[in-house]
Amino acid sequence: MKKSTHGGDIYSFAKKLKISPKKVIDFSSNINQLSPKVKIDLNKVNFSRYPDTNYKKLKKALAKKYLVKPSQIALFHGASSAIATLVKDKQVTIYAPAYSEYKRYAKEVKLINRFKNLYEKPTSNSLVVFVNPSTPDGKYYDLEELFKIWKEQNNTVLIDESFLDFTPNTSDFEKNNKLYIIKSLTKFYSSAGIRIGFVISSEKNIKRLEAITPPWNISTFDEAYMIEALKDRNFEKKTLKKITKDKKRLYKVLKTSKYIKKIYESNANFFLVKLKKIKADRLQKKCAKKNILIRESQNFDFLDNSYARFAVRSKKDIKKLKKVLC
Amino acid sequence: MKKSTHGGDIYSFAKKLKISPKKVIDFSSNINQLSPKVKIDLNKVNFSRYPDTNYKKLKKALAKKYLVKPSQIALFHGASSAIATLVKDKQVTIYAPAYSEYKRYAKEVKLINRFKNLYEKPTSNSLVVFVNPSTPDGKYYDLEELFKIWKEQNNTVLIDESFLDFTPNTSDFEKNNKLYIIKSLTKFYSSAGIRIGFVISSEKNIKRLEAITPPWNISTFDEAYMIEALKDRNFEKKTLKKITKDKKRLYKVLKTSKYIKKIYESNANFFLVKLKKIKADRLQKKCAKKNILIRESQNFDFLDNSYARFAVRSKKDIKKLKKVLC
Repeated sequence: MKKSTHGGDIYSFAKKLKISPKKVIDFSSNINQLSPKVKIDLNKVNFSRYPDTNYKKLKKALAKKYLVKPSQIALFHGASSAIATLVKDKQVTIYAPAYSEYKRYAKEVKLINRFKNLYEKPTSNSLVVFVNPSTPDGKYYDLEELFKIWKEQNNTVLIDESFLDFTPNTSDFEKNNKLYIIKSLTKFYSSAGIRIGFVISSEKNIKRLEAITPPWNISTFDEAYMIEALKDRNFEKKTLKKITKDKKRLYKVLKTSKYIKKIYESNANFFLVKLKKIKADRLQKKCAKKNILIRESQNFDFLDNSYARFAVRSKKDIKKLKKVLC
Repeated sequence: MKKSTHGGDIYSFAKKLKISPKKVIDFSSNINQLSPKVKIDLNKVNFSRYPDTNYKKLKKALAKKYLVKPSQIALFHGASSAIATLVKDKQVTIYAPAYSEYKRYAKEVKLINRFKNLYEKPTSNSLVVFVNPSTPDGKYYDLEELFKIWKEQNNTVLIDESFLDFTPNTSDFEKNNKLYIIKSLTKFYSSAGIRIGFVISSEKNIKRLEAITPPWNISTFDEAYMIEALKDRNFEKKTLKKITKDKKRLYKVLKTSKYIKKIYESNANFFLVKLKKIKADRLQKKCAKKNILIRESQNFDFLDNSYARFAVRSKKDIKKLKKVLC
């Protein structure tokens, strides 16, 4: 059995509680509560033939949205597959805490504790990894100062923007073969079961990346769905509006909780908290009694059993959480 | 642009001919002409939540069909992803010609020309790779003698059964941690756009494999579709019946062609041929004039520009091919 340290494992949780996965109130995974409007009949998608290895249509749709050229995009079967390919066998400096995947595939790892020593020098010539907004806290960092340090140390830079639906500045990409941006569509597009992640970089880097990835790495269904989903431009505005509202509600509950000492600054749709009077595993058990799944954070570097993370959810779910926390 | 040496690249072909990909008569890829009956409304599949990392339902359906335990199955995002994981950084002995992917990811490769020196000794302790039925010729090998040699040489064995919808003998798996079987659903289930491949091995090996593959490597749509497709048991009989008929028809055309010197023995749904009076690239051009895509085979080891491969297709398509070949 594959052990997941990621949030969202509602199946094991439901099994333990002997309830249907549908009954789980999942505060552990930060999937968007809204879904885009998609006008496509998936039963009519033709998946019999091999897909176009270049996935031209999907790349075009992504390029349009993120204001880059299709030739600056490499597609992967989920962001974790992009991570594995980019850090494999590399000397990596990780601004931690971050996703555990980065440590898993790298050859050598140096961790920088970004809470305490943000401006510590990374290993020179290494690949630096910065998740922005960060995880598990969701803080958005202004990277200007760090980019100066990275230049001095001759680093190649990987910015993981899985939580950011954001338009990068493209001018650098053309000149600089030392910058990679990872994007995930999973969270924003409420599509954890659709396996598409992508990397934005210079054309030269993208060509090199595509030469080492297997062809046909995207399911035809996933491709067809996502091309349509990207067309719903109104979805972005609606999502931001809803998250802003629900996030305020969640913040208020966390703020008044008897178990919470500190709420970390977050620009994403979740909050990391430092607990008081209770450890995360105990709080998890308390929540489980109400079918609520929360995320303990001790598997993150520099964190321990006194941290937990809560994703933004609906008014109704937050009310239920309140009963446990307050 | 990703260069594919695989068959089935109807998109580049159609672009060159300035026709729609739908107009291409594709003799280059050996996808089943029939599709299973699938009773599922894909528009109702819930892909918002993270999939079950264990893909219990899909594994159960596969285990039932291939008469193994679910715990003996590791799922991959297509057979090429399974190949990459299994041969990565290994010393590999390949019975060639075979899929080019095996050479691509291995650390060190020894090739055995199975046409000329089938019983040559593989590198001792290496991972031996045998595609059965073979590619590009489709011959089914009785492996009994080879298994004796492999035992002597202390090899780990990888049998690629992508072309075989076949029930392996399970008794060995339990005891022997040195046998891996790769299976692809793409060809038989007419689903090149659905990215699912799998490995059958001992429980111990499967656990080890799953520990090094990213979680959620299967699209939820693909999973939902395939679970249903595996239920259509009648499909197997229908397919075999149709292929047997069409294969005879294709054989007859190839046999009477003025360009074909030899047809290789095939137990799969395609034929490798040795050409006469014409080289494969010239024949390819002749076929292209009639929108027919065939597969030249010079990118296979030990073959050259005098070989071509033809997949079994419908009566109507074979008639069109006949006009070019005879």
